[in-house]
Amino acid sequence: MQGKKRIDSYGINIGILPKGKKNKITDVKGIRVGHCTIDTSENKTGITVILPTEDNIYQNKLVAASHVINGYGKTLGLIQIDELGTLESILALTNTLNVGLVHDAVVEYMIEKSKKDGLEIKSINPIIAECNDSYLNDIQMRAVKQEHVFKAIKDAKVDFQEGDVGAGKGMSCHQLKGGIGSASRTIMLDDEKYTVGILVLSNHGKLKDLTIDGRNVGRKIYEELNVEDKNSLGSIISVIATDIPLSSRQLKRICKRTVVGLSRTGSFIGNGSGEIVIAFSTGNTIRYDQEILSLKVINENKIDIIFRAVAECEEEAILNSMITANRVVGIGGKIRESLKNVLDGNM
Amino acid sequence: MQGKKRIDSYGINIGILPKGKKNKITDVKGIRVGHCTIDTSENKTGITVILPTEDNIYQNKLVAASHVINGYGKTLGLIQIDELGTLESILALTNTLNVGLVHDAVVEYMIEKSKKDGLEIKSINPIIAECNDSYLNDIQMRAVKQEHVFKAIKDAKVDFQEGDVGAGKGMSCHQLKGGIGSASRTIMLDDEKYTVGILVLSNHGKLKDLTIDGRNVGRKIYEELNVEDKNSLGSIISVIATDIPLSSRQLKRICKRTVVGLSRTGSFIGNGSGEIVIAFSTGNTIRYDQEILSLKVINENKIDIIFRAVAECEEEAILNSMITANRVVGIGGKIRESLKNVLDGNM
Amino acid sequence: MQGKKRIDSYGINIGILPKGKKNKITDVKGIRVGHCTIDTSENKTGITVILPTEDNIYQNKLVAASHVINGYGKTLGLIQIDELGTLESILALTNTLNVGLVHDAVVEYMIEKSKKDGLEIKSINPIIAECNDSYLNDIQMRAVKQEHVFKAIKDAKVDFQEGDVGAGKGMSCHQLKGGIGSASRTIMLDDEKYTVGILVLSNHGKLKDLTIDGRNVGRKIYEELNVEDKNSLGSIISVIATDIPLSSRQLKRICKRTVVGLSRTGSFIGNGSGEIVIAFSTGNTIRYDQEILSLKVINENKIDIIFRAVAECEEEAILNSMITANRVVGIGGKIRESLKNVLDGNM
Amino acid sequence: MQGKKRIDSYGINIGILPKGKKNKITDVKGIRVGHCTIDTSENKTGITVILPTEDNIYQNKLVAASHVINGYGKTLGLIQIDELGTLESILALTNTLNVGLVHDAVVEYMIEKSKKDGLEIKSINPIIAECNDSYLNDIQMRAVKQEHVFKAIKDAKVDFQEGDVGAGKGMSCHQLKGGIGSASRTIMLDDEKYTVGILVLSNHGKLKDLTIDGRNVGRKIYEELNVEDKNSLGSIISVIATDIPLSSRQLKRICKRTVVGLSRTGSFIGNGSGEIVIAFSTGNTIRYDQEILSLKVINENKIDIIFRAVAECEEEAILNSMITANRVVGIGGKIRESLKNVLDGNM
Repeated sequence: MQGKKRIDSYGINIGILPKGKKNKITDVKGIRVGHCTIDTSENKTGITVILPTEDNIYQNKLVAASHVINGYGKTLGLIQIDELGTLESILALTNTLNVGLVHDAVVEYMIEKSKKDGLEIKSINPIIAECNDSYLNDIQMRAVKQEHVFKAIKDAKVDFQEGDVGAGKGMSCHQLKGGIGSASRTIMLDDEKYTVGILVLSNHGKLKDLTIDGRNVGRKIYEELNVEDKNSLGSIISVIATDIPLSSRQLKRICKRTVVGLSRTGSFIGNGSGEIVIAFSTGNTIRYDQEILSLKVINENKIDIIFRAVAECEEEAILNSMITANRVVGIGGKIRESLKNVLDGNM
Repeated sequence: MQGKKRIDSYGINIGILPKGKKNKITDVKGIRVGHCTIDTSENKTGITVILPTEDNIYQNKLVAASHVINGYGKTLGLIQIDELGTLESILALTNTLNVGLVHDAVVEYMIEKSKKDGLEIKSINPIIAECNDSYLNDIQMRAVKQEHVFKAIKDAKVDFQEGDVGAGKGMSCHQLKGGIGSASRTIMLDDEKYTVGILVLSNHGKLKDLTIDGRNVGRKIYEELNVEDKNSLGSIISVIATDIPLSSRQLKRICKRTVVGLSRTGSFIGNGSGEIVIAFSTGNTIRYDQEILSLKVINENKIDIIFRAVAECEEEAILNSMITANRVVGIGGKIRESLKNVLDGNM
Repeated sequence: MQGKKRIDSYGINIGILPKGKKNKITDVKGIRVGHCTIDTSENKTGITVILPTEDNIYQNKLVAASHVINGYGKTLGLIQIDELGTLESILALTNTLNVGLVHDAVVEYMIEKSKKDGLEIKSINPIIAECNDSYLNDIQMRAVKQEHVFKAIKDAKVDFQEGDVGAGKGMSCHQLKGGIGSASRTIMLDDEKYTVGILVLSNHGKLKDLTIDGRNVGRKIYEELNVEDKNSLGSIISVIATDIPLSSRQLKRICKRTVVGLSRTGSFIGNGSGEIVIAFSTGNTIRYDQEILSLKVINENKIDIIFRAVAECEEEAILNSMITANRVVGIGGKIRESLKNVLDGNM
Repeated sequence: MQGKKRIDSYGINIGILPKGKKNKITDVKGIRVGHCTIDTSENKTGITVILPTEDNIYQNKLVAASHVINGYGKTLGLIQIDELGTLESILALTNTLNVGLVHDAVVEYMIEKSKKDGLEIKSINPIIAECNDSYLNDIQMRAVKQEHVFKAIKDAKVDFQEGDVGAGKGMSCHQLKGGIGSASRTIMLDDEKYTVGILVLSNHGKLKDLTIDGRNVGRKIYEELNVEDKNSLGSIISVIATDIPLSSRQLKRICKRTVVGLSRTGSFIGNGSGEIVIAFSTGNTIRYDQEILSLKVINENKIDIIFRAVAECEEEAILNSMITANRVVGIGGKIRESLKNVLDGNM
């Protein structure tokens, strides 16, 4: 369907671990991703949702964790994940000023979905994460409404698009076009195959620092393009999914390894960047009918390979978010060039 | 104005430090509190706002910190406070499912206010805290709309009401009626008088545990009233304000002492309780036109008296939130009795 | 055996949960406590060890967590507990400046013990916690040597002493004599009986604030005794043990409830106080021969009763640490009176 | 004296910011570093001390912070730094099992030094950090004694050595020889020149992952050398010093940027690695004779360049720790080859 070239089409192979079938977060079974893109003269923005399970997640909570790399961000829902170690809602990504309206829409969705399941929800912890797309988008309009959230949920699928779609429509990465990117790796444990996948919403970094597979390419592109050399309000949201059974503490450790991939693409984690990581595992079902529960976790001395997988996925997902994104002309005629155009010499 | 009897009218004197003039958070100069109460057959809920300064706080950020006592809560805005140590928005308290709509209204308010000040806001970190009032309120309706937020802001004053008002309308505390309560203490430092004040939105605790000034009174009341002995979805939000110049690290230490007052009223910090503390100081102005800034902070070896003040304020504010709250009959005819009625024998 | 009167002999009953058989941390099966007391003209100090299991704990690690209430302390070993969620060493309590020598002795003990088990240890994470006993003890001498640590380990038993023994010899609590205290509670889960126990090393608080079962008794004692009203270098170490199967995250939540008991005895968590909590569970065995492990954890919605147990144990353990401690005359003739003497009128 | 070739002699220039005069942590005025190396048939180990100021630091505390990248480590002293935001002792680096004896020696040194200054120390928070050198060193011997610590303190100088010296004697980095490395950068703020410097004790990483200036060189070296491809007990300690006036919160943010440099040399922050960062600023004097203190801090929107400096220093310091280290043959004839020999073709 999409046929967009990804970073590995350029002969760039990040890391040494085997990739999942689609090399996307949806290689983890049960996970679907949906977008709704808003593309008008004033607005380049949208919403991306991640549905972690086909069940009602409020009833079938997943083990989860979060990590704040840099906290210049407004993500909603992390406090409860940190306390209880569980995820009870779908995740939604959008622009900074739209966090409130998207929260309200997700609440509405969870109430309605649960009603159908015979459950009356009076408390729910929606996870709403954001980046600031105001360079290309009239962010004050809060263009993402309930209908867009519902459309994105309806759109959720395994074979989702990357680049300038959904919440990624207006995002910038290393002062080129950023947005949605993904990657996955597979791991053998006790003779079974498991998967780790990452989805990023990229909106961070300076052009001069852009590094692909260890080589700084940003300085050369900077000389070719006419962009300002200034600090921007950036951000990157990373969502990690896996079917490896893990405790919340282990998931938090895994979250922390995203910074490895991030650093290798040239970021030094700027002050103005909201860099947030959320991870969940589909490898345990939390049942509520027993007082003592049985959970599976990985032996800690086998965790290194998951750390490596996360570092690799993060680096590749960032590059995929850029290479799949088209050039976008936004509000006031401001432009974010596509990395693909730059690499292909099609500017 | 209101003539509501507070806990000290009952001869209950919490602690040993001198109280501020009104014994409220607004004894700290510049702070105002506003309510908008929604009181219909279906809804017992509302919104309470805290305006920390008469200036545009986005331009004149205050030093701030937060602390999570127990994270079963959905408060929005803490991540950025923790990273940057500053407050750049007004604070709003409401019910759990209304966090999104209230966020959107506060964004609208901050954009409009800033426009008047010649400032175009593209990023803002609203602080929206919540408790769950679904025992008395049809919480799924998200009854608090933009108009209510704006009304509360307009209502903001120094001499604000306590009890079953604003966000406190539908809240329960120790299975009696809870809501908004406040208290303050004064402290001498370098021969100058400073003030510490607290405002709580109380919605936590079991009746059997209710303790006033060291004496368990809950068990007796429990026998008199017909309430269930069960765990509830509780919460308590505490906002600390002071004019003592403090660093963000010091404010965080101060936040942690609220649990002392909380414990002394009988709480053991239940699993289902979102217990969140936010503190800010009006004692430093953060100027943006210099690369190196001068700040004042308290000498750490003088901080004990502030810790004591916080413990005293928290305990008294909780008791004030209960004693000033009227009996409320909510959705489905469910009742929360007033502590005042109980103590006065007027049930 | 010892016949020391504990706080419940005075008709003081803290809380509502049933107590364990001995009402001590050693009601949790497998746990033993040993002391070595140094009582000379210059030194009132010592060492207390907690042996969490009869196995070699390095090979059979226990799930563990820690929590810092106030960090004016020098406890060794928390970083690794926080990261890995496991305990791999015995615990030792001593005075502030003796942390190093005690660390070295515990390393020696663990190396030698493991050699006998055919294991060559090259890394170990000893947990050494401390309070400052310099009011009664010449702390600069670092009087606790390897031989004392080994004696304490040899002394380890279920029916251990409380009060001015071991690390408690020179400690002060609320400006009276403090030291070692303990308490336990039992809890039914899935029709099985479990135990939560706490051991404290108490060395915190001001006399004027001392509160027993909700009543301030400190102010009256303060008037009777001739003590200074000043802030002191305090501290309290709390060790929680349980046979309830819990995750590290759950144990950390449980640690945080000690502050409830602490607050109820009159502390407001002073600036100069190192208040550290360490918790471990004997309810899971961490096996190293599988890549995916099975662990048991409690259903989070059953955790409230454990929180309550911790609050009760902490309050009672602090009172036991005081009431069982004899009057001690320390270096320079400085005196810490016994609470027992005060309550019995035997000063 | 030393004439050791550093990484920039190989034409490798990390980053874009100007270097300090010596390109070492001691470019920050007042800081000195001392080593004592133990080099016997059984022991390849030692001690490195960092003296942050020529004053008595207990009386003239510096603003400080710490950060745990990965907590498989036994560093002593972080709890108090985190709570109070100050450094009151010299720092010492050594091997894992020697933390206790080195603590005791530093306590002795601080007591004696303070006696000369007319100050009787009864509490002190020594910072003792460690890596595990048991591959080359008989670590169970705890070979570092008080005399070695005192020698290292006496040896402290501005123009200190790097490589296989002091605590670095027995350390391994990417399965080659590691140890002590340093780098510095200068920054202009308000027309004044400031310096940021880092010293690392490197002992982490796998050979196959070693990356120099973006290029993986490890896989080729791995094929040439006969080393095992296995996870090791690693670690890296990073100490950041600066004369830029910063708050403890700001220093903590700065600590977090070391991971950028670390990632770029090929680490993915392994499970068995104790990766600890400690930072302090000489830019504020904390005076104890006033109740309200004045401090200088950097304007947060100028902090990006410090983040970049830290990332660059960390990367270069790691490379310097390797390139300056000689080949060492340790206990049992085990060998760590020198990166210099590898690059120079002198194996």
